[in-house]
Amino acid sequence: MRSPQSLRNGGVGGGGTPSPHARIPTPHHHFHSTVSVQKLKRFNSLILVFRLSTFCFSLASAVFMITNSRGSGSDSPRWYDFDAFRYVFAANAIVAVYSLFEMIASVWEISREVTLFPEILQVWFDFGHDQAFAYLLLSADSAGTALAITLKGTDTCKVTSAFCVQSTISIALGFAGFLFLGLSSLLSGFRVVCFVINGSRFHF
Amino acid sequence: MRSPQSLRNGGVGGGGTPSPHARIPTPHHHFHSTVSVQKLKRFNSLILVFRLSTFCFSLASAVFMITNSRGSGSDSPRWYDFDAFRYVFAANAIVAVYSLFEMIASVWEISREVTLFPEILQVWFDFGHDQAFAYLLLSADSAGTALAITLKGTDTCKVTSAFCVQSTISIALGFAGFLFLGLSSLLSGFRVVCFVINGSRFHF
Repeated sequence: MRSPQSLRNGGVGGGGTPSPHARIPTPHHHFHSTVSVQKLKRFNSLILVFRLSTFCFSLASAVFMITNSRGSGSDSPRWYDFDAFRYVFAANAIVAVYSLFEMIASVWEISREVTLFPEILQVWFDFGHDQAFAYLLLSADSAGTALAITLKGTDTCKVTSAFCVQSTISIALGFAGFLFLGLSSLLSGFRVVCFVINGSRFHF
Repeated sequence: MRSPQSLRNGGVGGGGTPSPHARIPTPHHHFHSTVSVQKLKRFNSLILVFRLSTFCFSLASAVFMITNSRGSGSDSPRWYDFDAFRYVFAANAIVAVYSLFEMIASVWEISREVTLFPEILQVWFDFGHDQAFAYLLLSADSAGTALAITLKGTDTCKVTSAFCVQSTISIALGFAGFLFLGLSSLLSGFRVVCFVINGSRFHF
C-alpha cells in the first residue's frame, strides 16, 4: 500500500504536478499529512453517514410503494396502475442501489486509504451521479405528490384510504432521501473543488 | 474604474492571496491579462445567451399557463383550480424574473468589465440561485406533468381538450427553460471553481 505522503503528492490517479519542494521531505510536511489523513477520515465518515441515511430512506420509500396494493378485485387500486407512483418507485430503487454502492466505496476508502476507482475518476463519478440522481429523485417525488393531491378528492381515496396514506408516506420518505442525497452532493462537490485545486483529496 | 490588471490580482472582493511574483509586472503578464479579458467576454456572452433562452422559455410557459381558462361557467376548467398548475406558473414566473435580473447583471458585466455585486458575492449568488431555481423548476414541471397525465383520462380533457393541450405546452416550455437554466448553472459552477482557485474571474 502506498504511504499517505505519496498519495498527497498526486501519486494515485494524477491531476497534480509535483511542486519543486516535494523533493525535500520535512517534519512539517509529514505532520501536515497526518493531520490531513485524520481530517479526510472524518470527512469520509460524514459522507458515509449521509449515504447510509439516503439508502435507508429511499429503500423504505421503494418498499412502501411496492407493497401498496389493496385487495385483488379489478377496481381496487394498485400502485403500478399510476405512472407517477411507478416513477417514484423506480427513482427510489435506483437511488437505493446507487447509495449501497457508494457506501461500499466509502467503507473501502476509509479502511484502505485508497479510493475504489482512480482518484480523479472517483471524485467526478460521485459528484456527477449525486447531482443527476438528486434531480431524478426530486422530479419523481414531485410527480408523486401532484398525483397524491389529485387522488385525494377522488373515490379511490374515499373507498380505500389506506392506499393513499401509504403512497403519501412513501413519497415523504423519498423526500427525506432527496435531502440526504443533496447533502452528499454538497460534500462531493466540495471534494471535487479540493481535488481540482490541489490535485489530491488530502487538503481541506 | 479599476484596470483589468488590478482585478486579476484579487483587487475586488478578495479571496486570493497575492503571490510574491505579483509584485513584478512583466509584458507577458499584461498580454495574458488581455487574452483573459477576451476569453471572459466570450464566456459571459455564452452565459447571456443561456439566460436569454431561460427567460424566453419560462416567460412563455408562465403566460401560457395564466391564460389557460376555458369558458366562464362554474364547471369549465381554470388553471388556478389545480395546485400543480399554480405551482408551474409560480416557479416559471420566479425563474423569468430571476433570469431578467441575471441578464441585466450579465450585460452590465460585459459592458463595464466589473460585476454588479462584489466579485465573490456575485459568483456565489449566481451559482446558488441557479442550482436552487433549477431544482424548483424541475420539481414544478414534474408535478405539472403528473397532473396533466392524470387529467388526460378524465372528463375535463374530453370536454375541453384545448385546456389540456395548452397546459401540456406550458409544461413543455417549462422543461426547456429548465434545460437552459441547468446549462447556466454548469457555467456559473465553473466560474465559482475558477474564482476559488485563482481568486479572480480572469483565469480559465
